[in-house]
Amino acid sequence: MKNIIVAQSGGPTAVINSSVSGLVIDSIKEGYTVYGAYYGITGILDENFICLNDVDLDEIKYMKTTPSSALGSCRYKLVVEDYDKIFSVFEKYNIDYFFYVGGNDSMDTVMQLSKVSKEKNIDVKIIGIPKTIDNDLVGIDHCPGFGSAAKYINTSIMELNRDAIVYKKNIVTIVEVMGRNAGWLAASTGISINYGGVPDLIYLPEVTFSFEKFHEDVESVIKTKGKVMIVVSEGIKFADGKYVGEMERTNNDKFGHAQLGGVANILKEYVTNNIEKRVKAVEFNTLQRSAMHCGSLIDIEEAFELGRKGLQYALEGHTGVMATIKRISSLPYEIKYDYIDVSLVANNEKKLPQEYINSTGNGITREGFEYFLPLIQGDYYVPKVDGLPRYTKIHPNYKVK
Amino acid sequence: MKNIIVAQSGGPTAVINSSVSGLVIDSIKEGYTVYGAYYGITGILDENFICLNDVDLDEIKYMKTTPSSALGSCRYKLVVEDYDKIFSVFEKYNIDYFFYVGGNDSMDTVMQLSKVSKEKNIDVKIIGIPKTIDNDLVGIDHCPGFGSAAKYINTSIMELNRDAIVYKKNIVTIVEVMGRNAGWLAASTGISINYGGVPDLIYLPEVTFSFEKFHEDVESVIKTKGKVMIVVSEGIKFADGKYVGEMERTNNDKFGHAQLGGVANILKEYVTNNIEKRVKAVEFNTLQRSAMHCGSLIDIEEAFELGRKGLQYALEGHTGVMATIKRISSLPYEIKYDYIDVSLVANNEKKLPQEYINSTGNGITREGFEYFLPLIQGDYYVPKVDGLPRYTKIHPNYKVK
Repeated sequence: MKNIIVAQSGGPTAVINSSVSGLVIDSIKEGYTVYGAYYGITGILDENFICLNDVDLDEIKYMKTTPSSALGSCRYKLVVEDYDKIFSVFEKYNIDYFFYVGGNDSMDTVMQLSKVSKEKNIDVKIIGIPKTIDNDLVGIDHCPGFGSAAKYINTSIMELNRDAIVYKKNIVTIVEVMGRNAGWLAASTGISINYGGVPDLIYLPEVTFSFEKFHEDVESVIKTKGKVMIVVSEGIKFADGKYVGEMERTNNDKFGHAQLGGVANILKEYVTNNIEKRVKAVEFNTLQRSAMHCGSLIDIEEAFELGRKGLQYALEGHTGVMATIKRISSLPYEIKYDYIDVSLVANNEKKLPQEYINSTGNGITREGFEYFLPLIQGDYYVPKVDGLPRYTKIHPNYKVK
Repeated sequence: MKNIIVAQSGGPTAVINSSVSGLVIDSIKEGYTVYGAYYGITGILDENFICLNDVDLDEIKYMKTTPSSALGSCRYKLVVEDYDKIFSVFEKYNIDYFFYVGGNDSMDTVMQLSKVSKEKNIDVKIIGIPKTIDNDLVGIDHCPGFGSAAKYINTSIMELNRDAIVYKKNIVTIVEVMGRNAGWLAASTGISINYGGVPDLIYLPEVTFSFEKFHEDVESVIKTKGKVMIVVSEGIKFADGKYVGEMERTNNDKFGHAQLGGVANILKEYVTNNIEKRVKAVEFNTLQRSAMHCGSLIDIEEAFELGRKGLQYALEGHTGVMATIKRISSLPYEIKYDYIDVSLVANNEKKLPQEYINSTGNGITREGFEYFLPLIQGDYYVPKVDGLPRYTKIHPNYKVK
């Protein structure tokens, strides 16, 4: 009987385990032996596995709602000598199917390995399963992990806003969200404008940033509303291509300390000195990619299904492909699953389309809104014990049976 | 017919509107006219009201799950001249019952006003409804708002931990939570040790902080687990009584910037320089007091009920009292509602009892765990529209009908 191995790579998402859950449940149902490699591709190099058939099936079901790579992750770029080692491990464990859940870099690994396997005539099917909160993968309508991150951020911004506006005084809140090169997550907060009236202003890496324009924008909202909610992508840049978050700063506070780092804090310093004294800078840290407690039902189910589809495509004989989602329509929301040659995805990056950005460069269009809205729909009940989430015990650091 | 006025004060909580919702629904049912004063007691001084009978009842029901004072808030200390003004407004609007939802300071306002009303023989019943995420009110087993904050923080710490442990490398995560003088919120994270295995270490204002002890603690966890999750209350102090978060720092980074502010960042700097290079500092900002998307069912229902009880006590003729909760037992969880003379509550502060703190001063006891556990139980389904929460439209900044 042929065996299966699965690994996870790159930065975590809320639903990266949902895909593994879907894949493993179906694989076991089909009678396969399934290994989970710990810490991504390095787990294969080190033969550091867990045999998932030996684990209580409930733990694999709990993976569906456990955030952040349960098998561990890595950021490892394969070197040429690794290929032989990997294929010898595959041979040793009788592996015929390898699934790699990850982003751009992981799809490069899938591409390289499937190329080598074809060259050497080794019959291993190698399949990519997509994930990234950044939503910047080419060849897929939207990435698993993005919808849950967007739902968490939109919800949290509405809550932060209710908190910020309790007092009569003016206030400016600046929320920084992830997105080094593409503004998908920041742009997604254009959804909550229609439900919570915020954010008032959104700054994206796709639009050149200037303090002059920013000053005008903020002052204009203060004049009409008094209270301003701003979302800024960590990757906004000046006209010279330099990140705003990395600009040199000299303005020390009264204790002789420099102000805080990060783009939200840089904008906070500017607003405090030039526009309004009451300013809050908020950063969501890694919660924005792991907050399964506010996950999107659509996202969780799609991630689960992509794991199942990955298996299906492998069993049909495909290799060097990534399971993908094609959107048929937004209203009503309709998609279909498919596969795509991984070479079209690897090492590529999808920016936010200009049609989604409004004419003033500080918000989104109706077209953008319709793209984002379906992705945050529905709530998933995360199993709980005593009021707290019951996560899978599967993890390289834990013992599981 | 007698009229009612309600106002909210101090820092917001996730459930401060639940109490108003319970109070107003019952008041309208009983046939009263109910005014909401905007921005706390200042709304009475300014005669800045909303008549809640004129609002669609659904908006009052939506208040039950809308975080952060829907009527707005203030931090205003009454001066003697204000008393006459307040009672003249009460007379003008035929107010016989005034409800103030707030913490220590608001209970002082309740006490002062009820004292003056008795002295001047003015028949207005003045009732306090408690709230504070800090859980530091005297005369109540636990404060509405605390349970939801604790549930959000415990859940988020478990998620942050799953994110932090994905790579093979050691990592130290330091999470700062609110609590300037009392460590209730930080201590409550002792719950998730039993469900997610974290935090490993908890630092409280009730225990003197020293870097020597901290160093030993962190090193010991690194030796056994490699990955460390630390929760620290913003109010931890050195033996000389100075806040750790306010210590002088000279250690600039390579760009010539000083390191970030806040106690988590100060501890981060220490760990980076002395123990482990991979360190993350996390701050929950105001989400910890307004994250209704992860609210506690018990907390929401108790807050709602305290609003109803407040009305009942007023109608029974009480004044100068606060509606309160007495715990009968923890396992099974059983409470009863009661009222307490507000002079016992006002300007007082309840510290975390020593019996809840473990012998090494960096965690909680079984007794503490049993106190906290019931308060985070149950999930409340927040009404949603298109995947985002449907909050009440009641707010001084919004138009509502």
